Parts: sequence; C-alpha cells; structure tokens
Amino acid sequence: MDDRMKKQIEFALEIDKVKNIFRQTHLSMNGRNENDAEHSWHMALMAYLLKEYANEEIDIAKVMIMCLIHDIVEIDAGDTYAYDTEGLKTQKAREEAAKERIFSILPDEQKAEFAALFDEFEAYETAEAKFAHAMDNLQPLMLNDSNGGGDWRAHQVTAEQVYKRQGKTKLGSEKLYELTDSIIQKNIQNGNLKEA
Amino acid sequence: MDDRMKKQIEFALEIDKVKNIFRQTHLSMNGRNENDAEHSWHMALMAYLLKEYANEEIDIAKVMIMCLIHDIVEIDAGDTYAYDTEGLKTQKAREEAAKERIFSILPDEQKAEFAALFDEFEAYETAEAKFAHAMDNLQPLMLNDSNGGGDWRAHQVTAEQVYKRQGKTKLGSEKLYELTDSIIQKNIQNGNLKEA
Repeated sequence: MDDRMKKQIEFALEIDKVKNIFRQTHLSMNGRNENDAEHSWHMALMAYLLKEYANEEIDIAKVMIMCLIHDIVEIDAGDTYAYDTEGLKTQKAREEAAKERIFSILPDEQKAEFAALFDEFEAYETAEAKFAHAMDNLQPLMLNDSNGGGDWRAHQVTAEQVYKRQGKTKLGSEKLYELTDSIIQKNIQNGNLKEA
Repeated sequence: MDDRMKKQIEFALEIDKVKNIFRQTHLSMNGRNENDAEHSWHMALMAYLLKEYANEEIDIAKVMIMCLIHDIVEIDAGDTYAYDTEGLKTQKAREEAAKERIFSILPDEQKAEFAALFDEFEAYETAEAKFAHAMDNLQPLMLNDSNGGGDWRAHQVTAEQVYKRQGKTKLGSEKLYELTDSIIQKNIQNGNLKEA
C-alpha cells in the first residue's frame, strides 16, 4: 500500500467514530437517539429523493458528499443541539480545530477538497449548500414530527426558535419550506411547540 | 402537501427503519454491531474518497445513491451474513418481496428508478455496480481487520470463503484488490482466518 492510499484508509477508519456521536433527535417510532452517521445517510438519500424541489439547479453529487461529511468534525467537537444557546457560542471554534485535525489525515489535496466542501456547507451560500442545509433541517423535523414532537417538548423549544432555524430551508427549497411550515403549524396547534 | 410529495416523505420516513437492522460487522475499537444505515453511509463516503481507484470511469453520484439504498430491502428481508450459506439460499426471494413493498411507497417513476438502481447493483455488471460492490466488500474488511479479525473468528470463516467474496473487488478496482489481498494474507498469517 503506497503512502497516499495509506492516508486515505486511515481517514476512512478514523471517521468510523462518527457512529458513536449521538444527537438529540430520536428515531421514528419513538426509538433511541440517532447518531451522526445515520443522520448523514438519511440526509444524503433524501437530497437525491427530493432534488426536484431545489430552488436552483444543483450538482447532486456535491450535495450528497456535503451531507455525508458535514458532521465528521463532531468526532472531536461533539454534537451541538440546534437550540443549545450556550453550546452554539463555542461551536465554531471547536469545529474548526476538529476540521484541522481530522482532514489532515488525508493526502494534502484531498484535505483541501474536503475542508472546502465543509466550509462551503457552513457558509450557506451556494445552491448546493442551501439544499444540503434544507435536508439538515427537514430530516430531524420529519422524525420529530413522527414522534409527536417529543424532542421539542423535552427541551421546551419554542416555535420562534424552530422558525429561526427552519425558516432558512426556503433558501434551498421554497416547496419544502411550505411542507416545513405546515408541520410546524400543526405542532403549535397540538401543543408540542410553545408559541413563544 | 400534494400527493407526490406525500409519497416521497412517507418513503423517507419508512427507510428510517434501516437504522435498526444490525449486521455481523462490529465498529472499530471493538465497538458494537454496525447497522445498515451506518454501513451505507460509510460505503458512499468511501466511494467518493477512493473514486480514483475505479478500473473504469464512473458516475460518482450514481455509485453513491446505489450505496445509500442497497440495503433498504433488509428492513423486511433482514441482514444475511456474507458467509451464512443457508440464509444465502433464500436471500434473493426475500429481498425481491421487500423491494416491491418498500419502493412501491414512492411515486411510480421514482419506484422504477430506485428499483432499477437496486437491480443494477445486484447484477454486478456496470462500472458503477462493480465499484459500489468493491465498497460493500472493503468497508467491513477494513473494520474487521482493525478489530483483529474478530468477526471472522466468531463465525469460523475460512480464507477460501473470504477470497470468494472479496476476490470480486478486483472487478471494480484492481488497486483496492491489492490492498484487500494484503489484508487477507496478514490475517491468515495472524491466525485470524483459517486457510481452509
């Protein structure tokens, strides 16, 4: 095995650890907490399934690889819950350090490629990043809705907080935002989400 | 939500169940058993990471979506261990029935598309199917090797059985087959794999 392949396989093995990073979201049918690998698998598959709803033309391979890698930094940085205001303050610094360590396992030019994909996702500006974020929003919303909003109730999340995050889905997909809005409204009416 | 989107979201929620289908492979660092969603995430990401080693030119988006969906049928059919000779006899029939039920949740033309991708993977003929299979072989080999061959020892798997399956990796990637061969040889020498 040459040095290049050795680095690639070392990276492939390192990222196995993301299967042990658990999120606040629960699996459907009131299952256990979901981990980052499962979440990323689901996002990438949903991106392909729902690509017709993207506002702009997208390179679907790029969206899928963005979805697949976007949470790798959490191996070091841990999962930061979308509505954890304290954790969100330090998230950026923790994830930058993780990005540097983990992607540095790769050959130089692949390190640059993967770091650029991660940065592009985080910047929320390109068509691909906006659609990948729509999946990052919709996937846990769908699971949580299927569980009667249990994750929101457990964390006493308000509709305002949910709209602040989920509202950005419309940047990637107006159509999927209509669905998002109807799910949020239903959960307000059911008392799963507090209005303020 | 129109009827088309309703079917797509119903499918997206149904496939969440694949996170509860556990495989014989264990996570690195002698972790717990791996599930199909995690395995599929890892395969799709490795396909992108290692695409330079494909024997033929490949459509990487197609390889990734094949990897992401190839185990969905196991929601109904269950996981069949690669070296379970009895289970392998009925695997095809169980998976065909599962394919029909699960993909039928989708709008007709997406049902046809997803079923065709699954069939193409199973047929092992196109460049994309052969490279996706190389990932389906290499990913558990890598994990099992990192755990000192524990999964092979637990099931008393022989080198002949491993070569029969892993030998086909060379159809997708001669280079990754060289790596595969060196890993198998090392595990024979270490006594993790019986010669016959």
